[in-house]
Amino acid sequence: MIKVGIIGGAGYTAGELIRLIILHPEAELVSVVSRSHAGESISKAHPDLSNWLEMNFDADLQHDPDVVFLCSGHGNTKAVLGTFPMYDSTKIIDLSADFRLKSDANKFVYGLPELNRAYIKTAQCVANPGCFATCIQLSLLPLAMHNLLEDDVHITAITGSTGAGQNHSATTHFSWRSNNASVYKAFRHQHLGEITQSVTQLQAGFTKHLHFIPMRGAFTRGILAASYVRSELSVSDAINLYKEYYYEHPFVDVVDHSLDVKSVVNTNRAMIHLQKEGDQLLMTGVIDNLLKGASGQAVQNMNLMFGLEETSGLKLKPGAF
Amino acid sequence: MIKVGIIGGAGYTAGELIRLIILHPEAELVSVVSRSHAGESISKAHPDLSNWLEMNFDADLQHDPDVVFLCSGHGNTKAVLGTFPMYDSTKIIDLSADFRLKSDANKFVYGLPELNRAYIKTAQCVANPGCFATCIQLSLLPLAMHNLLEDDVHITAITGSTGAGQNHSATTHFSWRSNNASVYKAFRHQHLGEITQSVTQLQAGFTKHLHFIPMRGAFTRGILAASYVRSELSVSDAINLYKEYYYEHPFVDVVDHSLDVKSVVNTNRAMIHLQKEGDQLLMTGVIDNLLKGASGQAVQNMNLMFGLEETSGLKLKPGAF
Amino acid sequence: MIKVGIIGGAGYTAGELIRLIILHPEAELVSVVSRSHAGESISKAHPDLSNWLEMNFDADLQHDPDVVFLCSGHGNTKAVLGTFPMYDSTKIIDLSADFRLKSDANKFVYGLPELNRAYIKTAQCVANPGCFATCIQLSLLPLAMHNLLEDDVHITAITGSTGAGQNHSATTHFSWRSNNASVYKAFRHQHLGEITQSVTQLQAGFTKHLHFIPMRGAFTRGILAASYVRSELSVSDAINLYKEYYYEHPFVDVVDHSLDVKSVVNTNRAMIHLQKEGDQLLMTGVIDNLLKGASGQAVQNMNLMFGLEETSGLKLKPGAF
Amino acid sequence: MIKVGIIGGAGYTAGELIRLIILHPEAELVSVVSRSHAGESISKAHPDLSNWLEMNFDADLQHDPDVVFLCSGHGNTKAVLGTFPMYDSTKIIDLSADFRLKSDANKFVYGLPELNRAYIKTAQCVANPGCFATCIQLSLLPLAMHNLLEDDVHITAITGSTGAGQNHSATTHFSWRSNNASVYKAFRHQHLGEITQSVTQLQAGFTKHLHFIPMRGAFTRGILAASYVRSELSVSDAINLYKEYYYEHPFVDVVDHSLDVKSVVNTNRAMIHLQKEGDQLLMTGVIDNLLKGASGQAVQNMNLMFGLEETSGLKLKPGAF
Repeated sequence: MIKVGIIGGAGYTAGELIRLIILHPEAELVSVVSRSHAGESISKAHPDLSNWLEMNFDADLQHDPDVVFLCSGHGNTKAVLGTFPMYDSTKIIDLSADFRLKSDANKFVYGLPELNRAYIKTAQCVANPGCFATCIQLSLLPLAMHNLLEDDVHITAITGSTGAGQNHSATTHFSWRSNNASVYKAFRHQHLGEITQSVTQLQAGFTKHLHFIPMRGAFTRGILAASYVRSELSVSDAINLYKEYYYEHPFVDVVDHSLDVKSVVNTNRAMIHLQKEGDQLLMTGVIDNLLKGASGQAVQNMNLMFGLEETSGLKLKPGAF
Repeated sequence: MIKVGIIGGAGYTAGELIRLIILHPEAELVSVVSRSHAGESISKAHPDLSNWLEMNFDADLQHDPDVVFLCSGHGNTKAVLGTFPMYDSTKIIDLSADFRLKSDANKFVYGLPELNRAYIKTAQCVANPGCFATCIQLSLLPLAMHNLLEDDVHITAITGSTGAGQNHSATTHFSWRSNNASVYKAFRHQHLGEITQSVTQLQAGFTKHLHFIPMRGAFTRGILAASYVRSELSVSDAINLYKEYYYEHPFVDVVDHSLDVKSVVNTNRAMIHLQKEGDQLLMTGVIDNLLKGASGQAVQNMNLMFGLEETSGLKLKPGAF
Repeated sequence: MIKVGIIGGAGYTAGELIRLIILHPEAELVSVVSRSHAGESISKAHPDLSNWLEMNFDADLQHDPDVVFLCSGHGNTKAVLGTFPMYDSTKIIDLSADFRLKSDANKFVYGLPELNRAYIKTAQCVANPGCFATCIQLSLLPLAMHNLLEDDVHITAITGSTGAGQNHSATTHFSWRSNNASVYKAFRHQHLGEITQSVTQLQAGFTKHLHFIPMRGAFTRGILAASYVRSELSVSDAINLYKEYYYEHPFVDVVDHSLDVKSVVNTNRAMIHLQKEGDQLLMTGVIDNLLKGASGQAVQNMNLMFGLEETSGLKLKPGAF
Repeated sequence: MIKVGIIGGAGYTAGELIRLIILHPEAELVSVVSRSHAGESISKAHPDLSNWLEMNFDADLQHDPDVVFLCSGHGNTKAVLGTFPMYDSTKIIDLSADFRLKSDANKFVYGLPELNRAYIKTAQCVANPGCFATCIQLSLLPLAMHNLLEDDVHITAITGSTGAGQNHSATTHFSWRSNNASVYKAFRHQHLGEITQSVTQLQAGFTKHLHFIPMRGAFTRGILAASYVRSELSVSDAINLYKEYYYEHPFVDVVDHSLDVKSVVNTNRAMIHLQKEGDQLLMTGVIDNLLKGASGQAVQNMNLMFGLEETSGLKLKPGAF
């Protein structure tokens, strides 16, 4: 059994990690650190685990985990790493944005399995991708792979509220967000950096623009991204190209029907649908932001890093409704 | 024109008051105090008023209002009254719970027009009822009037999130409250005091219990209260008794169909539906918690205190959806 | 008082019209036709009107209305007009798509007051614009007016469920739509025709593309449209140009803060916010799809056609939450 | 592997069964019958299964299932059983209400494991309980077991929309149900029969009333039931009594904090919380209506009928949000 530790255990992504690890057939949870909640029952922060997980938050990592997931929030990873002594061999999966860009990455591999599976398998440290970034990259990478992003790409993506974490803000207040929609960080969302990095990794010399309008949706889980680009590909050629790209990737499916967010909620799956109107090729992608967009993908990375089956512990019943 | 001042102007009930007063044909808004937002545009706190209400929050009451609405939050009214010098003749409508009970009330009249209209008309100070309290009293008072609350009353009421105000809490976070339901303060909600006081005002010697289970609903505006009591009345006699009680009250209607919250949202109306099964008489009532349950009722009280038509400024298009 | 008739009275847009007309100071409702509900109380279809509007649906128009609103659904207007004999002088406002395009329009004027106010004032027949079309045109027309739509325009707009009417479909089922998001009719929504027609009316020779991705949102009322285009305008010049365009239009406001749908829900207002990033100019617009996007705009048109103040009966308290 | 057949495969409960069975380690899906969808891909009706379950709906049962789940809707079971020839030894789990009452039950055992586990283990046919009925019984049975339901019981329960199935109705339309709440079938919900039957099974001679107010909530999955009764038990004695009752039942937990629906959504768990105010003992229970309230409980019954571990295939990651 792989011994798992989690740092920053009271937040949403940590909660999802805990839910996944305690059901994972080849991993066991040995320590969940939350300095603000140290000594308290984990189920106090994650009440769905009441009478299930009888374990308290630790102040420091216990029981020498084989792998540590960092859920400490963006900007804190380096400091956190300095604070928690680990073995040199301990594997690390960081869910923050701190080491996603190569310029900051040191020995961190960018953990999108559908891009970097081979590297992840041998990595000691993985930077887990952002949620928008995951959904948008999965929508674009097969084109980039064939140098077919030949014009500006236009992207709108709408996210559930859990993407903003459990901190309170005006836009996570139920009275505001219920029955509402809004745009934010138009053209300058922080995930554009990692998306561009990955596109360029496959399509060297890509210099077109990625125009990205993020939206806040009146839902809790999930992301839908609609991305389009001028293309000379026929829709059937495009579909074939995507199916080929994802042929050996168990969590991404190219489907032939319209998509909605709830088709993948509570799973680690991504679904992509392609359409063509005139010369515009539209890729619609959906993921669960907390699973394929965060904690599920982190476990997928753990599986790869430890030589397990990629889907181990990730065969999840869809929420559906 | 009646000159209106509001103290505590950045919150939800103040926002509703502002929306009502700026459309009121016989009132004008002269000063909105918010010490935390003094000098800022009112529309910054209430963005639906952008480019509509060109007025800033004041640090102190300006322009000698004829009436002042207090929206400062429970427990603060006495202190607030001491801080803002007003004319002796200034009328005051307090939306907090501070003066609703006779023992605390001094010269405050309990401002439920369907109970105390005559007193409100001559009052200088009115304590505006609570939202649950309004909905439940409207469901019970016609029985109390005829000494017909002869057994324990069982009440469940579910409220929208705006009832909790704009302060952040775990239970107003969208990620938690969306698609959810929960019970709180079972049997000991603070509104039971004013409900009991009003019931006893009509039915002296009432000693039965009011069992009240409050629930949080996954909606923003409105309250539905389902109240039942053993009764020997036939349903048609009960309906007649309610219709008679509310005959001269323009905002309460006894209807002959099932009710839902959105039938009254964005209006000052209350609807009540009566049913009988076996010996149980069920009264279902719905209101908008921010209007008939707070700011709308406050304006209704203002209308009465100044001798205006009771419905002035309160003929509101229902939201319906 | 203007005598108002409505045909197709049981649907959502008719319900909103009824709510507006019964509160309109210069109009009175004389006949609401619904052949499927003839003889039944109007409040049976619109229960928020219970004990308020004591009137039944008619099988045929009664009392010689001065103006008739047609809410019969797309494709039915011509047939409907043949079935209901009216005076030659009766004014007609059609809420369907049937006469919005000039090629179909006969004597119908396209009823977007912010484009055609002068024509509407003297029109006998008005084709009321579509909801998406209204929101998107208001976002684009000031640029078109100055021939500044110089490149393809990229538009994503998300709509509430009431835009789909009260007919049942898989995508209006609560179990599906709650907490969800989806794309539909990408690049080929039927409103593109009227949008292009209006853009061309102002910017003759416009030949660029309008790329439009419509989305279904998990909310009931409202539309948010995010539209961007490459532009050499500075953001302040753009704002000035928009403010100038809408200077004499009471329902459209250019605001300096981010927008969300609920800022305008239950009002006839549109708000527009402009931003610039790099060479992209982004216009975000919000309206209530049933008001400025349908019935509110229809009343605005009625006001213009009868020489009333444009805002008469349309000073509505925002829903806000 | 247990060979599983499902009849009535296009509805919500069948969808959940399919999702559970395809992940169940000891069962395999061999035939899903839907006469209206025969020949079509199952994923057309349940799109979250696209590219996962490559199987079509059958017109008739195929491959001689060991167990057949009947999801044909209430009132149809007898007719359905006559239409589909099965082996005499085929086990049957009926999700309809048709055989829940002993008077109708023939050889059907009422399938609430927390009441009838021993009988279910040897049953050939099981009548799966109703969703409200499950939640309310779990809240009351420990008291009934000790003859402690000594007075009328007062119950309010609120349900998600999936409880109404996928048929369209006015109250499942998103435009109506979103942001809303309503009461229905007050005091006469059809589940009262099975609840009373089970209470009487444990507390012979129970003659008090169960007053039950069902409510429709603005959420898709889950039920919360608040039940109270006058009781002389202290809260700690009550808690002990409940903990003892559920000690050997893996899916029911007595917890010491307030409950909300989402704590159990997407799991087969029930949580119960007890409080005492004055002489009233309040039991709040939550379940997922489609899992512990329907398809999850059906699989739990299958596990018992085939001698598997009761939790097999039911260790589900909570949805949490």
